[in-house]
Amino acid sequence: MANQITLCDVSPRDGIQNEKISLSAAQRHELIRRLAAAGLRWIEVASFASPKWVPQMADAADVFAGIERVPGIRYTALVPNLAGLERAMAAGVTEVAIFASSTETFSSKNINQSIDESMVTYRAVCDRAIGAGLRVRGYLSTAFGCPFEGSVDPAQVARVAERLAGLGVFEVAISDTIGIAHPGQVPRVLDAVLARVPVDQVALHFHDTRGTALANVLASLPYGIATFDASAGGLGGCPYAPGAAGNLATDDLIYMLDGLGLETGVSLAGVSDASTFIASKIDHPLPSRYAQAQAARRRLKAEG
Amino acid sequence: MANQITLCDVSPRDGIQNEKISLSAAQRHELIRRLAAAGLRWIEVASFASPKWVPQMADAADVFAGIERVPGIRYTALVPNLAGLERAMAAGVTEVAIFASSTETFSSKNINQSIDESMVTYRAVCDRAIGAGLRVRGYLSTAFGCPFEGSVDPAQVARVAERLAGLGVFEVAISDTIGIAHPGQVPRVLDAVLARVPVDQVALHFHDTRGTALANVLASLPYGIATFDASAGGLGGCPYAPGAAGNLATDDLIYMLDGLGLETGVSLAGVSDASTFIASKIDHPLPSRYAQAQAARRRLKAEG
Repeated sequence: MANQITLCDVSPRDGIQNEKISLSAAQRHELIRRLAAAGLRWIEVASFASPKWVPQMADAADVFAGIERVPGIRYTALVPNLAGLERAMAAGVTEVAIFASSTETFSSKNINQSIDESMVTYRAVCDRAIGAGLRVRGYLSTAFGCPFEGSVDPAQVARVAERLAGLGVFEVAISDTIGIAHPGQVPRVLDAVLARVPVDQVALHFHDTRGTALANVLASLPYGIATFDASAGGLGGCPYAPGAAGNLATDDLIYMLDGLGLETGVSLAGVSDASTFIASKIDHPLPSRYAQAQAARRRLKAEG
Repeated sequence: MANQITLCDVSPRDGIQNEKISLSAAQRHELIRRLAAAGLRWIEVASFASPKWVPQMADAADVFAGIERVPGIRYTALVPNLAGLERAMAAGVTEVAIFASSTETFSSKNINQSIDESMVTYRAVCDRAIGAGLRVRGYLSTAFGCPFEGSVDPAQVARVAERLAGLGVFEVAISDTIGIAHPGQVPRVLDAVLARVPVDQVALHFHDTRGTALANVLASLPYGIATFDASAGGLGGCPYAPGAAGNLATDDLIYMLDGLGLETGVSLAGVSDASTFIASKIDHPLPSRYAQAQAARRRLKAEG
């Protein structure tokens, strides 16, 4: 088990993209500033997907332009293709993420390409990006279940993970897109993936849609997994179950990792500060259980 | 690790007692009927605490009188003292639960007795109940943290657990009253408790206030713990953080245990049916993440 855990906070991108409301560039800068102040050293800032498909991210370049950059913090952006990569590079982005799928149907519905076609696209993105000195991360969606195909064979996940790794990404983020993973499944997927990709190139991205995200993290720790994605306050719903919880909350994850005595470099109070900022901008309570408990305690205190 | 897990659904008592609304006896009968139909074989029905202190439970005798009793199901009731026990026995209850505290301050505030005094009270309750052929369960509150004293020494928890076991209870339910436990702490508490109480006499009762309940269950399984409390839909808030989540949801727990391939005899669809019934009676969404995801999927389907 690793002693030190690396966290990527995805609230400014994956979080906001799956909320009904939009936050202004200035509000995102404030969120990013608070995440940095909390000790997060890796923040997923925006997506350079076409504004036609992801209107919340149309101002990605403005968001990047206005970040108060803190040395040592990695600010990353999603890019779907070469055009997105060029926009990202023009905006000064130095780390990008591509997103492949474990299942053909999700690949087709999400990016309008087969898995094979997406590998051609991402090969070009990786060659151009890495050649220009950028780092590339590879998301692998629907690794624990697909909203269209249902259950997914871990061997298939492992094969696509290996293909992503072969493109030169520094890490494959094995992602539970619909929040269906459970700790019985995590070992099966990791056994398959780790037979093909070294453990220090594997991250996990869980959604808490069915409440299992923390248990899944716990189940992965004995495998030596040391990198997890999470979203401050649990920001971000699930497009396949609107109204349900989405991303694992950074708050909840830090509470558990602190309890386990694992080093993250992130302050729970600092994350709560970022969450509280977000809470006032969205139209529903934050999904994070920890954030809800903190808010309840504040109300109780205010009532005397 | 045990292959078979025993669940006690506490929604009719611990759940409802911590909700603002009250359910009629008939509504509780319907809830209990649905829990039984889901395969639950152990249901905490009511409390024979003084109606002065717990008004939601004033009709405990009526609730017991009207249950459609299913052979093989244990219907249990909390009793605070001999007077409560006599009322429970008059209502035909055959299994009761007493509730001691790990900390002096909580004991004093919750039952107005020191821990020593409570042991005298409960000694009398156990002698009378066991002498009359009843089974007695012992809750042990604040085992992972106290709303008044803060952190709690596992050695203290183990000492009170051993005293409870010494009264003749068939099981001690180590309880995280304020939902503060994390999987770093669970092993420390279990190491201490299991040195004094046999593992088949230890149950765990988690609250999901900070989102860690499922991870805590997962952390306890290697110790051979095989009995857990949970509440359908996650019914029941936390009196020390009003508005935050309370009991671990039976729905979420079954989802995880099913995934781990552990036998519970409980159908997730059946629990969802009980949850859905509850959802229409309370003034907030069910805290269960699984229930929320199910509700979201139903809404999505209804919208076409």
